[in-house]
Amino acid sequence: MDHLPDIQGQTLNGSFVLTRVGITEVKKPVKIKRDGRTVTLIPTIDVFVDLPAQQKGSHMSRNIEAIDEVVDDLVRDPSPSLEDLCLKVGKLLLKRHDYAKRAEVQMVADYFLERSAPLGRKCLENYKLLARAMVYADGRSKREIGVEAVGMTACPCAMETAKNKMECSDDGPFMSHNQRNVGTLILEVSEGHEVEADVLIDIVESSMSSPTFQTLKRPDEAEVVIKAHTNPMFVEDVVRNMLSMLINKYGDLPDETRILARSVSEESIHKHNAFAERTTTLGVLKSPLDPDPTDELD
Amino acid sequence: MDHLPDIQGQTLNGSFVLTRVGITEVKKPVKIKRDGRTVTLIPTIDVFVDLPAQQKGSHMSRNIEAIDEVVDDLVRDPSPSLEDLCLKVGKLLLKRHDYAKRAEVQMVADYFLERSAPLGRKCLENYKLLARAMVYADGRSKREIGVEAVGMTACPCAMETAKNKMECSDDGPFMSHNQRNVGTLILEVSEGHEVEADVLIDIVESSMSSPTFQTLKRPDEAEVVIKAHTNPMFVEDVVRNMLSMLINKYGDLPDETRILARSVSEESIHKHNAFAERTTTLGVLKSPLDPDPTDELD
Amino acid sequence: MDHLPDIQGQTLNGSFVLTRVGITEVKKPVKIKRDGRTVTLIPTIDVFVDLPAQQKGSHMSRNIEAIDEVVDDLVRDPSPSLEDLCLKVGKLLLKRHDYAKRAEVQMVADYFLERSAPLGRKCLENYKLLARAMVYADGRSKREIGVEAVGMTACPCAMETAKNKMECSDDGPFMSHNQRNVGTLILEVSEGHEVEADVLIDIVESSMSSPTFQTLKRPDEAEVVIKAHTNPMFVEDVVRNMLSMLINKYGDLPDETRILARSVSEESIHKHNAFAERTTTLGVLKSPLDPDPTDELD
Amino acid sequence: MDHLPDIQGQTLNGSFVLTRVGITEVKKPVKIKRDGRTVTLIPTIDVFVDLPAQQKGSHMSRNIEAIDEVVDDLVRDPSPSLEDLCLKVGKLLLKRHDYAKRAEVQMVADYFLERSAPLGRKCLENYKLLARAMVYADGRSKREIGVEAVGMTACPCAMETAKNKMECSDDGPFMSHNQRNVGTLILEVSEGHEVEADVLIDIVESSMSSPTFQTLKRPDEAEVVIKAHTNPMFVEDVVRNMLSMLINKYGDLPDETRILARSVSEESIHKHNAFAERTTTLGVLKSPLDPDPTDELD
Repeated sequence: MDHLPDIQGQTLNGSFVLTRVGITEVKKPVKIKRDGRTVTLIPTIDVFVDLPAQQKGSHMSRNIEAIDEVVDDLVRDPSPSLEDLCLKVGKLLLKRHDYAKRAEVQMVADYFLERSAPLGRKCLENYKLLARAMVYADGRSKREIGVEAVGMTACPCAMETAKNKMECSDDGPFMSHNQRNVGTLILEVSEGHEVEADVLIDIVESSMSSPTFQTLKRPDEAEVVIKAHTNPMFVEDVVRNMLSMLINKYGDLPDETRILARSVSEESIHKHNAFAERTTTLGVLKSPLDPDPTDELD
Repeated sequence: MDHLPDIQGQTLNGSFVLTRVGITEVKKPVKIKRDGRTVTLIPTIDVFVDLPAQQKGSHMSRNIEAIDEVVDDLVRDPSPSLEDLCLKVGKLLLKRHDYAKRAEVQMVADYFLERSAPLGRKCLENYKLLARAMVYADGRSKREIGVEAVGMTACPCAMETAKNKMECSDDGPFMSHNQRNVGTLILEVSEGHEVEADVLIDIVESSMSSPTFQTLKRPDEAEVVIKAHTNPMFVEDVVRNMLSMLINKYGDLPDETRILARSVSEESIHKHNAFAERTTTLGVLKSPLDPDPTDELD
Repeated sequence: MDHLPDIQGQTLNGSFVLTRVGITEVKKPVKIKRDGRTVTLIPTIDVFVDLPAQQKGSHMSRNIEAIDEVVDDLVRDPSPSLEDLCLKVGKLLLKRHDYAKRAEVQMVADYFLERSAPLGRKCLENYKLLARAMVYADGRSKREIGVEAVGMTACPCAMETAKNKMECSDDGPFMSHNQRNVGTLILEVSEGHEVEADVLIDIVESSMSSPTFQTLKRPDEAEVVIKAHTNPMFVEDVVRNMLSMLINKYGDLPDETRILARSVSEESIHKHNAFAERTTTLGVLKSPLDPDPTDELD
Repeated sequence: MDHLPDIQGQTLNGSFVLTRVGITEVKKPVKIKRDGRTVTLIPTIDVFVDLPAQQKGSHMSRNIEAIDEVVDDLVRDPSPSLEDLCLKVGKLLLKRHDYAKRAEVQMVADYFLERSAPLGRKCLENYKLLARAMVYADGRSKREIGVEAVGMTACPCAMETAKNKMECSDDGPFMSHNQRNVGTLILEVSEGHEVEADVLIDIVESSMSSPTFQTLKRPDEAEVVIKAHTNPMFVEDVVRNMLSMLINKYGDLPDETRILARSVSEESIHKHNAFAERTTTLGVLKSPLDPDPTDELD
């Protein structure tokens, strides 16, 4: 069928550039090699390239071929991270779509780390990896390393009012409402800089009132509950804690490093959620007077 | 195109009966008339009929026509409830699919009731209605009246261990983990018997440690937190509370009335949920010695 | 409890600005007045304000109060659209959070319009409204008017190859794979300019191979199938069609009007989706030489 | 804290039996050994036991411990399937909850099989495994082996009407609407009988108009499109095809083997789905005159 017209390759006049053309919701198991151990992840994958105004369509099957080639290659050429895998797929996408100036690849996957419950019991805890890469025809590239972790927050405000209501004058922890909190931390780093997803997970988890665990025997439960109530936090506090730890850990990254830090509290006393978020760059975050986000964001 | 073969009506030999054939995920606004006020609901609707072995296909467009006719008729002939609406659609389905011996209709919709926060402030709280009707060619019918309500549970076990750990010898409420709890209560009632969804919502909400509210000023928050910790409950307790109140309220319904009561706690100290459920009939529930559910369910 | 410390209002030193603090996943029925008729919508609502570095927390209950006040006021002061409602809530949010420089409100709701199937039968079709408003302390504001509509695309490329394979030399429509396509179109307009969501829905639906309908009798089905195969389209074509119609209809809006046009095809021959998107401004779109989106987007 | 009261173990008077008490939405990677190769799955796991009337609560942490012990043991004692894993966890649950008469375990996981596209290209296709086990204190047990597979159906009715409308008198395939179809097949088998999930996936996929593939070059696309239109099918046909193949393949299983076969077509010409389902036992299915499902199901 060689003589078939290349429909996608047809030349158009007066048409529009497209920002992103590709495929979404692809699932495929991949093997990542971290710290000597091999981890199987099952990411959901989206890939895109841009499309010039004069080209009718993108060749969609080349997207899957690019993913497949990189995934098959992992046996010989293992990737240390999901974001590195995104980068490799992105580079191959640009090769296969020669009209494209930019490729974008994102992968989301369940991820597990061993944790210790308060009294030492080992638990395998569940997180999410949010990886992304942008690759440009001029050779530049960027990667996003992101994580999502679930922990617990206890409310400092309700603690104060409940204590007052029950006429307790003690300074210590007191009952409050507490709930699941979903924390998200994403860094967009330029080439040559490294950020470790496991460290970001540590930051998110330790930003909350307490991390949570799959297995808690009764004495562990007491520890988690008391810890959470000793560290009551608003969603605002959680985000600021993340930002603070991020500067400590990754303050040496370039000023233009983009940051998203988010905390969503699935409030136990409401049917809706509480939400706080900061989107900025590391440079702005580190400046002595953190400026008005209105200026920054519009 | 009258001369076209009726493909769905083709006669098959040696084929299989189908239990349910129909359409799912239909959305349509409907107006219900309750207690003199008109309520707009936007249910997601599934409708089914059975299909005899010798008939190739069901006429799918008749399903939508049955829904439309009933919904259009609501102006003249208002329905007092979503389950009544299901029943009307089910009856019409049987008329339009003359080969069918059974029609099944289910609707799920967001629903709102005004509630008072502890200090009297009015809140509009969000629930779900889960309605269903089965209509049989021999004239019998059944309806399911079901509700889902979100509230709050505080854990009695962690409260005890935290109190012990902090060496508090007081008898009163103490800090514990607490979280969103999703309660579900469904009754399948035969014809001629009435159950009110609003009453089921009352039962589910009052089965938990505390109901939750959209608007809580600080003194309200203290009340909700203290109430929840004064009534700590396992998911098991929540289900048993529902069953107990159900017998009080609807114990006069026939013994064969089917019941589902469920409580799912989105644990604040774990990433997974705690779950408890009872499925049975009213007769079994009211018998002096509630028998072994293993016998009952298999 | 007036003597309680205002915990959220506590002054912090050396902390971080937060971009967005608020509540999400609030549900509430609202009444919109369009073209003389009253429409009940049940939006899911998110509201946010920014938070200065020196303020510990936002007063979350003020968010619900702002929503409630506007919704209650709709009886006296009806809103013509969901985005207008967002704007009103946003303005009130700024009043109630006097430390904030920016308020953001978004609402997503099911929406229904009457359509005519090919042979004239009336259908109530289901869409989504995606509304958003940004309000600034200096008095400026912006609104986003967005819609999501589901239609059908038939693939032009598979049509060509299938025709070739079956040695059909006819020019007309031929079998191809076809599937549900989810189209999204969002305009961000500055104050004083009006865009009508119903018109955006028209644009999205007519950008596809064919709109789809809830009720189709057999002759209607033939019409829809033939129409779709007479207008085969890639996701790329769908997006470009939207952009083209948008310029026709709203080309007079200011150049800085932001646009998102997206088409996602739930491919029948794959388990993954095909995706195309353009994000830009009206000015760029209208320029004789639509520039490289790489430059525009980074 | 040994002297703490065992709150869950408290004796109640006049309370209710609970049908299922446990935990849901646990995620954990597991390694299955099939045909010599090791497969990593990441199931979402729900586990339950029943609870006698006189026992206040179930010991929830024992559920996770049972899962952990079995998963850790897989290194020494590999499982050949997810349903076998469910069975092992169920047996351990009964040991750890000595008051329980029944344990129930269900796991849902993404699963991948290599397939060949029409012209021979290898694709890794994505399916779902739906496994479940019931274990009884008297030693009996049952397992459910279930699969979900996505394929494609082309509508035979619209094909006929479109052909008629376009005045084509040819007998061959013709354009029609076609779409994603989600097929589900679940068998509940008693002890000592084996069913292979891969075979069930084969049955589901070959019950549709055509399977679908991740990578299709243009000649492959033509083959899939032509194959689908040569085998147009209603959801009813898909279910009956599954049942027919099931009898061929597993007709020797005991008569009491329970069966669920379902086909959901995400209609390209509608915004809603078409649905067909059969739930029955193998014995009924094999009887010369498949009886009325109304009798069977109520």
